[in-house]
Amino acid sequence: MSFDTLQEKIIARKNPTVAGLDPKPEYVPAHILKDCYARYGETLEGAAEAVYRFNCGLMDALCDVVPAVKPQAAYYERLGWRGMEVMERTIAYAHGKGLFVIADIKRGDIGSTASAYADGWLGGAGVGKERLGSFNADCVTLNGYMGSDSVNPFLDVCRAEDKCVFVLVKTSNPGSGELQNVAAGDGLVYQVMGDLVEKLGGAVGRYGFTPCGAVTGATYPAELKDLRARMPRTFFLVPGYGAQGGTAEDVQHAFTRDGRGAIVNASRSIMCAWQKTGRDGTDYQEAARSAAIAMRDDIGRFVNIG
Amino acid sequence: MSFDTLQEKIIARKNPTVAGLDPKPEYVPAHILKDCYARYGETLEGAAEAVYRFNCGLMDALCDVVPAVKPQAAYYERLGWRGMEVMERTIAYAHGKGLFVIADIKRGDIGSTASAYADGWLGGAGVGKERLGSFNADCVTLNGYMGSDSVNPFLDVCRAEDKCVFVLVKTSNPGSGELQNVAAGDGLVYQVMGDLVEKLGGAVGRYGFTPCGAVTGATYPAELKDLRARMPRTFFLVPGYGAQGGTAEDVQHAFTRDGRGAIVNASRSIMCAWQKTGRDGTDYQEAARSAAIAMRDDIGRFVNIG
Repeated sequence: MSFDTLQEKIIARKNPTVAGLDPKPEYVPAHILKDCYARYGETLEGAAEAVYRFNCGLMDALCDVVPAVKPQAAYYERLGWRGMEVMERTIAYAHGKGLFVIADIKRGDIGSTASAYADGWLGGAGVGKERLGSFNADCVTLNGYMGSDSVNPFLDVCRAEDKCVFVLVKTSNPGSGELQNVAAGDGLVYQVMGDLVEKLGGAVGRYGFTPCGAVTGATYPAELKDLRARMPRTFFLVPGYGAQGGTAEDVQHAFTRDGRGAIVNASRSIMCAWQKTGRDGTDYQEAARSAAIAMRDDIGRFVNIG
Repeated sequence: MSFDTLQEKIIARKNPTVAGLDPKPEYVPAHILKDCYARYGETLEGAAEAVYRFNCGLMDALCDVVPAVKPQAAYYERLGWRGMEVMERTIAYAHGKGLFVIADIKRGDIGSTASAYADGWLGGAGVGKERLGSFNADCVTLNGYMGSDSVNPFLDVCRAEDKCVFVLVKTSNPGSGELQNVAAGDGLVYQVMGDLVEKLGGAVGRYGFTPCGAVTGATYPAELKDLRARMPRTFFLVPGYGAQGGTAEDVQHAFTRDGRGAIVNASRSIMCAWQKTGRDGTDYQEAARSAAIAMRDDIGRFVNIG
């Protein structure tokens, strides 16, 4: 599914936000862990199964509020192949709930290797005479440090399969400026990367965006504003809202004047909403749903999706 | 295992090279694929099993010639979780053969997420009261575009577990200069990254290298020379020898004057050596071994390991 599909889902739910599925161990309510450890032991299998149950419960509660989910690969790889198996199942479950899936993998490698990643995450692998899918995400995040030949193999698959990517441009973390804000060429490193991304995307879809999106952190609103002006044909994924410090006022700069072209991520504030209700975590679904609605309304004060 | 261990293994085998395990479908000899498809069908499981058998055969043939192997995650992720399961088994098999394992994953993310990756690939994940390992690599490759807070969580695990990393500085691919050779600060982007890596590593080990190594491509010998002078305490992983065009004469610049501090990768030329013998691939082990010995001797003309 391309940015056209994502934009449609955003408009249908009047909500330009994506729920991160970053299941750190401490995010999972105790009753889920207890059940899974009782059944599978305190094993990687037990921990992975707990993650899956938690994810499914969250998606059940959120699927008519948010248009998309973003599983972060690190929290699945942490549990080895059993975690990756749960990542596959999580993506399949999300699709069953009508959710757009951004696999947050931040991959990037030389051409032939990038093709193999693209096959695994977006297109499916040739096996004998068949092409077999596994992770089947709609969209992935990428790291473009290696240059356009590390991104283009993904874009080839995107054009064939109607999918899309987000390339890191200005990231939300405290240390992002160490490289990204160094003076480079006629501007700064993140601007060089932004210009590259804007150029790489090629033809635009129905809403005016290429399949090559950009990651631009909410924690740096001045850079966000700069990049929105600089990259008119690029869809933005905006991390850093909420727990990392970005506000609704900050993220408004990611959108076009007609409220298009951006999606804002929140992970902790939705997944861990149950930790603030003073109960034992059995209310994690209601808590997550309330937090997602509050976030939608908060951003809605500054962005008119129409 | 740290760079001290890797350097010892290099000295013991008088061979500063690492065999890439990048099992593209067309690299696997037909008789292995046929056996595995007969047993598991033309499925992801069958393809993954063929990869495992091929890897084991290669490691059996190479383990007294090369000190290390470098499985490239993309060729495992391509096959979904079944590929990742085979990556785990491949690393375990390599350790059984006394090989140092560099997992070529090129990960990089914000602090807490980087910690989760480090747990999965190097340290083991906390599950209940236990810490459970899965991938258990000795070393991983990283992408530092996001800054030092995306690398430091790996270095914390390295110091605790006596392991190490390689951060991308100047990569071997044709497009690497698009960002990496842009003028930045007082030099070029790759030099900014190199200075960051040299600084991040902290204390050095017995051979004078920090746990934070660098990836520097053989295809850019001038940059390799520049970085060796600029980063005296940094161990180099050098891709791009052989099929990508780097020569033994080029890679000599990666080493210190006493022949330390670098390891050169070759993947295709070793894995696909069987395609040049005019036979049917059943000789892939002898062919790989001969190619690895030829590479060792080729580099030995320019680098004296001592």
